[in-house]
Amino acid sequence: MLSADLLVHNIGQLATVPGPGPKRREALADVGLVRGASMLVRDGRVAWVGQERELPTHEAAERLDAGGAAVVPGFVDPHTHLIFAGDRVDEFEMRLRGVTYQEILAAGGGILSTVTKTRAADLDALVASARLRLDRMVAHGSTTVEAKTGYGLSTECELRMLDAIYALDATHPATLVPTFLPAHAFPPEYRDDPDAYVTLIVEEMLPTAIARRPADTTLFADVFCEAGVFTVAQTERILNRARELGYALKLHSDEFEALGGTSLGVSLGATSIDHLMATPDEEITRLAESETVAVLLPGTTFGLGKDDWARARAMIERGVAVALATDLNPGTAWCVSMPFIMALATRYLRLTPAEALTASTLNAAASLGLHHERGSLTPGYYADFLLLDTGD
Amino acid sequence: MLSADLLVHNIGQLATVPGPGPKRREALADVGLVRGASMLVRDGRVAWVGQERELPTHEAAERLDAGGAAVVPGFVDPHTHLIFAGDRVDEFEMRLRGVTYQEILAAGGGILSTVTKTRAADLDALVASARLRLDRMVAHGSTTVEAKTGYGLSTECELRMLDAIYALDATHPATLVPTFLPAHAFPPEYRDDPDAYVTLIVEEMLPTAIARRPADTTLFADVFCEAGVFTVAQTERILNRARELGYALKLHSDEFEALGGTSLGVSLGATSIDHLMATPDEEITRLAESETVAVLLPGTTFGLGKDDWARARAMIERGVAVALATDLNPGTAWCVSMPFIMALATRYLRLTPAEALTASTLNAAASLGLHHERGSLTPGYYADFLLLDTGD
Repeated sequence: MLSADLLVHNIGQLATVPGPGPKRREALADVGLVRGASMLVRDGRVAWVGQERELPTHEAAERLDAGGAAVVPGFVDPHTHLIFAGDRVDEFEMRLRGVTYQEILAAGGGILSTVTKTRAADLDALVASARLRLDRMVAHGSTTVEAKTGYGLSTECELRMLDAIYALDATHPATLVPTFLPAHAFPPEYRDDPDAYVTLIVEEMLPTAIARRPADTTLFADVFCEAGVFTVAQTERILNRARELGYALKLHSDEFEALGGTSLGVSLGATSIDHLMATPDEEITRLAESETVAVLLPGTTFGLGKDDWARARAMIERGVAVALATDLNPGTAWCVSMPFIMALATRYLRLTPAEALTASTLNAAASLGLHHERGSLTPGYYADFLLLDTGD
Repeated sequence: MLSADLLVHNIGQLATVPGPGPKRREALADVGLVRGASMLVRDGRVAWVGQERELPTHEAAERLDAGGAAVVPGFVDPHTHLIFAGDRVDEFEMRLRGVTYQEILAAGGGILSTVTKTRAADLDALVASARLRLDRMVAHGSTTVEAKTGYGLSTECELRMLDAIYALDATHPATLVPTFLPAHAFPPEYRDDPDAYVTLIVEEMLPTAIARRPADTTLFADVFCEAGVFTVAQTERILNRARELGYALKLHSDEFEALGGTSLGVSLGATSIDHLMATPDEEITRLAESETVAVLLPGTTFGLGKDDWARARAMIERGVAVALATDLNPGTAWCVSMPFIMALATRYLRLTPAEALTASTLNAAASLGLHHERGSLTPGYYADFLLLDTGD
């Protein structure tokens, strides 16, 4: 007799998205569809899943009738700038008039205008504004959400942003995954000596942040490697130190220009490399040969009104493990919705709906190192599931 | 003493979008912004609007504190296929694999698969499924919605679709505007003799439908003028007869190919011509010189995963009155949201936010002949307004 907390029955179609590894090539389209399914949940994890007629003898404390609807794993959003203060409404019209992201940044706008507002916000204010956004993300089906620092750019404010992530994770039903990103931009006070800021990151910020992380928490370090932001050499210095200290690694690379950050990230064993809009063929091949997951962010291309979509099909055909994320941030992607990202991905990255689903669940979990416990509805995985308002 | 039913006060910014005519060129960006505004409503219409400090002496039965939020006119969605049965989920993956819209239609799919399901649905079923969609449209801010027939393609079923529009309008808080579109496709039973279907439309369907319309209702007639659908000659025959019978005129033109339908529509005095993705320069000039409103449907370009966006900037610069709509339909635009259409329009049609707002309110009302009563928050206009969850 199987004893369970919850039976979900009368499921029209259930996509298990079977793990454990991130999916590549043809496997990306294998969502493990079960028609006429039931699922048993115990201690928050999937205990059994399969066709209803094969349901084992069980006792369930609660029953949920899915009414023939489709069930999929909760979405994993593996790249977000969830924590920030203020907005950047003024920049939107500037960009529509043709001013570039880099020009706005060089003029002290962009990320730096959010830095000013974030430094002025206390912990409670950061948590409160992020909570409203996180509520909306959950309403759009995200159950696991990565969140980055990077609008503090001082030891004190970067740590406050991490504390905001921890506080929100402890008090919100969604699962948060923290990423430390002091290397998001150069703060104004280091404008004339960027290497001194890299030294601050390496000698003070990285060691302090990892020493304060909660028990059993994986902490990622991330760098915005891009023309006008962090060079490949600076990125290498930061990520090398982070790896020594026990961080898992992420990287913003090739959003606007290909500098070689992607090869660097692969060689350092980064868990994911993100953006990849300008990645050349040889670096796509390096990604394909690695364990690193490529996180594509079409909402940012959309937010910037551009059409240089990441070459997802070339990546998939060469065997790269592709994931999707919103890149939620106040400047370029005001987007809480993984379904919208999937809609963009099916149209402009030419993913099939099945590929987009895997890229938003199991592969997104893999880009956070969580593919053994999240992003799938097979036994042992956390039973984060969505009941869709559709049968298909 | 001004006596009012409602005072809305403490409005951070209010966009009046002053009328009365559809706006062109620079005027398109004039949303009539009032900072620190109040508005008085009497008998469902705007009685006074202006800066709070100039609020006249009044008595108001109800008061609504906007809490500093922004207020805009309710969105007018002037091109939708709201009434239909079934879905066309299967076609989405076909199109992602490269099968064209026209190929699907030629194979008996597309519109015709919806026709089969719509003919099998009774009035109550059509109203019930459309009501759920209309609820969502209102949740996204649309207060006036055009709705077309065109999935019946028989006199009986086309009239049933009109009845569904009238029934929904009578029982739903949104305002519906009916459009009769038996010329949406050729029904299977007329495949070998399309002109006989045109004769049926002209001799039976158009006269019957206009005779049955409710009192004081403007009824539009519309034709899908396109390669493989209705020729320019067939379109002219239908629209000429419709005009004689007292219909106001609309036209689907230049969605895929430019056949000359746009010049025809202008010469017949059509209230609007819609789609206009392939419209050549000389026809843009003809539109600019006319009273006809151009209704652009970027959600359809998006739904088809294409990037041949309508040349909105060329239209605006030449003086065309541009409006926006969702084109909600089961095949190419599963979209209930005017804010999403505005997001597409600002990015890919290069409208400014102010232009997109006017195109979704006053100009959209003009494309339905309603610019003297809807789409603006100036005295005398219906007080359909949105309280936005933002101050800007």
